[in-house]
Amino acid sequence: MKGTESSATPARIAAVDTYDIRFPTSRELDGSDAMNPDPDYSAAYVVLRTTEGGHEGHGFAFTIGRGNDVQVAAIDALRAYVVGRPVAELCADPGSLYHALIGDSQLRWLGPEKGVMHMAIGAVVNAVWDLAAKREGKPLWRFLADADPAWLVSQVDFRYLTDALTPDEALELLRRGGRGADDRAAELLRRGYPAYTTSPGWLGYSDEKLTRLAEQAVAEGFTQIKLKVGADLEDDIRRCRAAREAVGPDFRMALDANQRWGVDEAVAWTRALAEFDPYWIEEPTSPDDILGHAAVRRGVHPVKVATGEHVHNRVVFKQLLQAGAIDVLQLDSARVAGVNENLAVLLLAAKFGVPVCPHAGGVGLCELVQHLSMFDYVALTGTTEDRVIEYVDHLHQHFLDPVVIADGHYRPPAAPGFSAAMKQASIDTYTYPHGTFWAADAAQAAATAGTGTTAAGAPGQDTEVPV
Amino acid sequence: MKGTESSATPARIAAVDTYDIRFPTSRELDGSDAMNPDPDYSAAYVVLRTTEGGHEGHGFAFTIGRGNDVQVAAIDALRAYVVGRPVAELCADPGSLYHALIGDSQLRWLGPEKGVMHMAIGAVVNAVWDLAAKREGKPLWRFLADADPAWLVSQVDFRYLTDALTPDEALELLRRGGRGADDRAAELLRRGYPAYTTSPGWLGYSDEKLTRLAEQAVAEGFTQIKLKVGADLEDDIRRCRAAREAVGPDFRMALDANQRWGVDEAVAWTRALAEFDPYWIEEPTSPDDILGHAAVRRGVHPVKVATGEHVHNRVVFKQLLQAGAIDVLQLDSARVAGVNENLAVLLLAAKFGVPVCPHAGGVGLCELVQHLSMFDYVALTGTTEDRVIEYVDHLHQHFLDPVVIADGHYRPPAAPGFSAAMKQASIDTYTYPHGTFWAADAAQAAATAGTGTTAAGAPGQDTEVPV
Repeated sequence: MKGTESSATPARIAAVDTYDIRFPTSRELDGSDAMNPDPDYSAAYVVLRTTEGGHEGHGFAFTIGRGNDVQVAAIDALRAYVVGRPVAELCADPGSLYHALIGDSQLRWLGPEKGVMHMAIGAVVNAVWDLAAKREGKPLWRFLADADPAWLVSQVDFRYLTDALTPDEALELLRRGGRGADDRAAELLRRGYPAYTTSPGWLGYSDEKLTRLAEQAVAEGFTQIKLKVGADLEDDIRRCRAAREAVGPDFRMALDANQRWGVDEAVAWTRALAEFDPYWIEEPTSPDDILGHAAVRRGVHPVKVATGEHVHNRVVFKQLLQAGAIDVLQLDSARVAGVNENLAVLLLAAKFGVPVCPHAGGVGLCELVQHLSMFDYVALTGTTEDRVIEYVDHLHQHFLDPVVIADGHYRPPAAPGFSAAMKQASIDTYTYPHGTFWAADAAQAAATAGTGTTAAGAPGQDTEVPV
Repeated sequence: MKGTESSATPARIAAVDTYDIRFPTSRELDGSDAMNPDPDYSAAYVVLRTTEGGHEGHGFAFTIGRGNDVQVAAIDALRAYVVGRPVAELCADPGSLYHALIGDSQLRWLGPEKGVMHMAIGAVVNAVWDLAAKREGKPLWRFLADADPAWLVSQVDFRYLTDALTPDEALELLRRGGRGADDRAAELLRRGYPAYTTSPGWLGYSDEKLTRLAEQAVAEGFTQIKLKVGADLEDDIRRCRAAREAVGPDFRMALDANQRWGVDEAVAWTRALAEFDPYWIEEPTSPDDILGHAAVRRGVHPVKVATGEHVHNRVVFKQLLQAGAIDVLQLDSARVAGVNENLAVLLLAAKFGVPVCPHAGGVGLCELVQHLSMFDYVALTGTTEDRVIEYVDHLHQHFLDPVVIADGHYRPPAAPGFSAAMKQASIDTYTYPHGTFWAADAAQAAATAGTGTTAAGAPGQDTEVPV
């Protein structure tokens, strides 16, 4: 990886700026499901500024509202590890920072490698990859696809993985996967990468809206939709019937329970919906329950089992694969420690032959994760068979390089970087609590003299507790 | 649970005060191990103040230095859920707050039920139990042992557990376990609860210090010691030999690798130390690696496998038991979401017949966890066979009601509450960065004109990365 500066004083990371950005999505019940009745899609957003000017690195952790300030505080705690690092050196080896952050013995105690601190590491590490790809003038998917396999292997932390995947095996997967990459890159530019849409299926939508959006999904060229389930079985039966009627018998319709169930309940509930021919059941139970997912998978066959958006690190993905617990691996771009850890997850999935159908939606998750799937297609697994990237049509307007969907496919991004950068106007408007939207909202709430809190504010004691 | 106030206006939680408290333990290499070369034992400390005056509830999350501010920020994010709650109602049902916090849909995204946010919930929930026990005038172990089994069951969240333990089974375990409780409480008051000591075995200690402290442990009546291993095999062989010679052939000597190894390495390294007859190997690999622990256990038999101090919730403990992955369950008082979740863990261990030997040490972990083991003995499993609570002789002087060890046993606490309260002088001295110790330390560092950071400060770029 060559740098773009050559002066005697190497350019360094000058600043790590953070922003608590929250969108009031709960007001339209966008994103509502059985566990998340009223999310305010949010980003703990980070910008790496350099002394060389020009390029910045952008990244974020995605949250759904309250606690986004804690997520920002966790990124702030990493600032001292990043500021001052030589830019060219850092971009030539993002793994050096990744290893330093996950290996810091004191910070490690706060996970290890899970939760708030791990997502903060992911935000910062992804920002480095954004910067590195920009400095090479390539979209990240191509930056990765063009990289030397041995260098990619050096970016992975194999600690706790070697009983399932060794560095030599990873290298062989990448070397084999790279054959024919140019042809597949050309094919990708022609056809894009298949997408599925969750937009029809939010739990808070009316049946009429569900039907309309499901029909629209078919008309727009998607080959799969997804419905949220798990709050009420009678409702689910009615909604599944409506959706199946809207899309017809040969269209893939996935279900998503968002961790609502215990193991036995997951099996029983999924079986009760089997007449509607669901393609997969997603997050049937706790994302920590590897053995539980394996039991569910045995119990709901031939319905497939999918999970991953809340799987907190490569060690859990390794076990889900070792235990035969999942049919579909739902990688998330911003839950684990960034591109480095997701390389490990893609390699594990390739080794075990399990298709990756990434989680996306939220704030900017589509923008990020498309790069990882496109790399996987071009330079690792070489196929899009049974692979689709989730697509949700919310909040893309806030990004400088938003995803483009055409005929049910993600168009490959052309702009250099990781597509992570948000528009400055959106940042200024939705920064919580002092951005223009939230300030006006608070003023209005004060004017109407209500004592209730705003959507993104702290809850009162009548917080709804899902049971 | 009766309250102590009866006025027309019920007493409420008035304030949630938080403190970032850090002790400079790294300067003596107390607590050093293969993954944690230089911990600064710290507490994200919380005090619940009430409008009734008198009793306060104290709790904390334990960390090892950097990031303790993030942990405090996470507790701060919970303030709005707690302030204003009626004290009597809250103390009569701590589970109501526990459920509200782990069930809050927006905060849940930050885990779910793991890492910084989960430990913050643990700190607050434990503070409620401290307050509840104080208001009843009982040490927590007795408060729990005296409680109605059905009420204890109501304090557990069985979501994701019922494939391993149902509420009915839990109730039966508690009903059966409660028979003869008075006799066992009397026995506990006479003999205390068995302890083992880790003090000889820190990795940074010289062989001479190791030998001296190991001999001292035997002389003081402990029946087990523990050595840190995993940094260098030759060193480990030498240290194990010295320790075994010091304690003699019939004394239990446990080993602790602090997650240093992959699965295959854990098996090989443990076998290489088998000649010294280790009793258990603790944290041989990632705490997330359930299947890995099971493989290690098969590979190192008859050496036992122990883990738990970094196991982040009841769902992982459930699987460790289901998979037959551990011989010894090392419950931690402050890693999971407080007493409520630890009740679930104790019940799971009882169901599977696996002994609980709690993790302790750090800041105040001995003070807290003794209550849980004593409850387990008096009113759940009824035995201390093969059960020992870890003991480390650091930092107890900062607590108002420090643990008392006599003849290798924990003396049962008599003071009401959870033994969580720190002395005000200690708080004032060690609050970071403005407490008197840290302020003086910073002033001295400035005076010596070094550009390095203080022990608890952010690291430079030469942060040591354990590999």
